[in-house]
Amino acid sequence: MTAVREIRLKSRPTGRPTLDNFELAAVELADPRPGEVQVKNLWMTVDPYMRGRMNDAKSYAAPFQLGQAMEGGAVGEVVASNDPALKPGDLVQSMFGWREGFNAPAGAVQKLDPRGLPVQAFLGAAGMPGLTAYAGLLRVAGLKDGDVVFASGAAGAVGSMVCQIAKARGHRVIGSAGGPEKVAFLKEIGVDHAIDYKAEPDLARAVLAGAPDGIDVYFDNVGGPHLEAALTAARMFGRFAICGMISIYNAAEPQPGPRNLALMIGKNLRLQGYIVSHHWDLMPDFIRDLSGWVAEGKVTWRETVFEGIEKAPEAFLGLFEGENLGKMLVKLA
Amino acid sequence: MTAVREIRLKSRPTGRPTLDNFELAAVELADPRPGEVQVKNLWMTVDPYMRGRMNDAKSYAAPFQLGQAMEGGAVGEVVASNDPALKPGDLVQSMFGWREGFNAPAGAVQKLDPRGLPVQAFLGAAGMPGLTAYAGLLRVAGLKDGDVVFASGAAGAVGSMVCQIAKARGHRVIGSAGGPEKVAFLKEIGVDHAIDYKAEPDLARAVLAGAPDGIDVYFDNVGGPHLEAALTAARMFGRFAICGMISIYNAAEPQPGPRNLALMIGKNLRLQGYIVSHHWDLMPDFIRDLSGWVAEGKVTWRETVFEGIEKAPEAFLGLFEGENLGKMLVKLA
Repeated sequence: MTAVREIRLKSRPTGRPTLDNFELAAVELADPRPGEVQVKNLWMTVDPYMRGRMNDAKSYAAPFQLGQAMEGGAVGEVVASNDPALKPGDLVQSMFGWREGFNAPAGAVQKLDPRGLPVQAFLGAAGMPGLTAYAGLLRVAGLKDGDVVFASGAAGAVGSMVCQIAKARGHRVIGSAGGPEKVAFLKEIGVDHAIDYKAEPDLARAVLAGAPDGIDVYFDNVGGPHLEAALTAARMFGRFAICGMISIYNAAEPQPGPRNLALMIGKNLRLQGYIVSHHWDLMPDFIRDLSGWVAEGKVTWRETVFEGIEKAPEAFLGLFEGENLGKMLVKLA
Repeated sequence: MTAVREIRLKSRPTGRPTLDNFELAAVELADPRPGEVQVKNLWMTVDPYMRGRMNDAKSYAAPFQLGQAMEGGAVGEVVASNDPALKPGDLVQSMFGWREGFNAPAGAVQKLDPRGLPVQAFLGAAGMPGLTAYAGLLRVAGLKDGDVVFASGAAGAVGSMVCQIAKARGHRVIGSAGGPEKVAFLKEIGVDHAIDYKAEPDLARAVLAGAPDGIDVYFDNVGGPHLEAALTAARMFGRFAICGMISIYNAAEPQPGPRNLALMIGKNLRLQGYIVSHHWDLMPDFIRDLSGWVAEGKVTWRETVFEGIEKAPEAFLGLFEGENLGKMLVKLA
C-alpha cells in the first residue's frame, strides 16, 4: 500500500472559486491489478477550462463530482506495473492530475518520449496549450501570409505560444496582457506591440496603435472588452479564433456580449469557436514544427510553479487573478 | 426636358428614422448626352441596409449625402438612348432608386432579361435578397445534407427565400417571424416549425420545440434575442450566417451582444458575417437553381407594395416596424 494525497471537489462555487471549494484527502493505493500500472505524478497542470467542470452543468467536459478527486493533465513515472506495455521508470501522460499518484489501466495513460524537452513542457508549450495555439492560428483562423495577428491573454500558456508561433512564421503580432511584468515578457518573446490592458483606457485604440491598418487575425483567450476591441480593429475578412473567455468564466450572471458584434457583417468577419480536442490530428505536425522552432531559439516559455499537491487549489485560483506568467504548473515530486 | 421627382436625405436620423429625414424634390432631366441613357424607373426597392447609409459613418456602403437623392436598387425602362448599347424599351436594373427617372452612362445600368419573371422580382427573390439567401446558406453557412436550419426574419425578403431554398434542398426548417399573419405565410411556404416571436416568452425553447436535437445552421437577419436563442439551440459544429441585425440598426446607443456567446467555444460554432456583394459570382448558379425551383412550384414570394415615389419613405420606415410580408417594394410607374 502506498499513501498518496489528492484534491477533491468539496463544494461547487458560485462565481469565483475559493479555497473552501477544495479539500485535501489521503488515500491508500493497493498494488496494481492485472492490466494496471501505478504512477507517481511528477507534475500536474491547472487550466482555466477546469472552472467549467466545477459547475454541475452539461458542457464539453463532464462535471467534476463532489467528494471525488478532480481531474486534469499530469505527467508522471510508472512505479509499478502489472501490464507488459509499461515498466517502472517509464514516463507517462494522463488525465489523472490533482493527485500524487494513482492506479489505472495501462491503456488509460500515454507513454511519453520527452525528446530532450523537460517533461512538464508536455503540459504546456508541447502539450495541450501549445497545440491549442497552433491549431487555433493555423487551422481555425486560417493564418495566411501578411496577416497581422492580435492575441489577448498573450503572456499565458496558450497566448505566449500564439505570439511566438505567429512571429516564427513572420507575422506582425500585437499582444495584450495585464501589468508591466507581463508586458516585459511579451517584448522578450518578440511581440511587436505589447499592450498593458490594465493601464489602457481605450483598448481598440491601443490595438490600432500597433496595427494602424487593422488586424486580420484575433486569437481570443479572454472575451469581454478585448473581443469588442478586436471587432473594432478588425480589417475586412478578419478571422477570429475564439478559444476562451476567461473574463466571464466566474460570472454568476450571464455577461453581455460585445456591443459592436454587428461590425462582423460589414467586415465579413468569421468568429470560430473551438476546442482543441477536435484537433489532435495536428499533434504530429505541431511537435515537428515546435522542435524546429525551439532548436532555432524562436520559441521559449515561462512557467509559474507551485510546489506540492496542497498548493494546487491556490495555483488554480491564481489563474483568475492573472498571476501566472506562462504556464501555471504544480510540481508534485 | 422631363420632370421627375426624387427622394433626398434631408437630415440624418438618430435612432429610428422619421418622415422628417426625407424630402421629395422635383428635378428636370435634360436629354441624355452621348453615351448616356434616360431611364424611367418602374419599381424601386427599400432595404434595411439603407439605414446604415443614412449615418455619416464609414461602412461597407458610402453614406448618403445630405440634400442629394438617395440610392438603391431599381428596375426601369429605357425611354431615350444616346448610346448604341441600349435602345428605348429595354428593361434595365440600376442602383438609381429613390427617383422616378434618371440619366446615366449606359455602362452604369444593367440590361435585364426577365426570363418570364415579373420585373420587380429582380429586386427581390431573383435579385439581391434572393442571392443573399442563396449565398448565405450554401457558401457562408456551408449547408450540408441533414442540417436543421433556423432562420429569423423568416417572412421577409431574404428570410422567406432562406426557408424555401432550404426546403427545396430537403432540410428541416424552423422559421421565426412576428405575428399570426406572418406565421401563416411561413406555413404556406413550407416551414416545418413556425414561431411567432412576439407571442413567445422563451425563444430558445421555441426553437428547440421545433428542433429537439438542436440546429446546425442559423441564418441571422435580426440579431438580439434571436441570436442568443440560436446559440443556445445550436448543435456541435453549428454554422451561423450573420446577414443582418435589424433589431439594433436604429439603436442610438450600442446594444449588448448575446450573453451566451461563450457557448460558441464548447460547441465549436462558426459565426460568419457577410455582405452579398462579395458573392456576386454565385448569381448565375442562383438564377439557374431558382428558375428550376420556381418551375417546380418550390419557391414563391410575396410583395408588399407602396405606390408612388412619395410613399418611399413610408415603405422604408415600415421595414423597421415589421410591417412587410415578403419584399417591400415601391411601384413608380
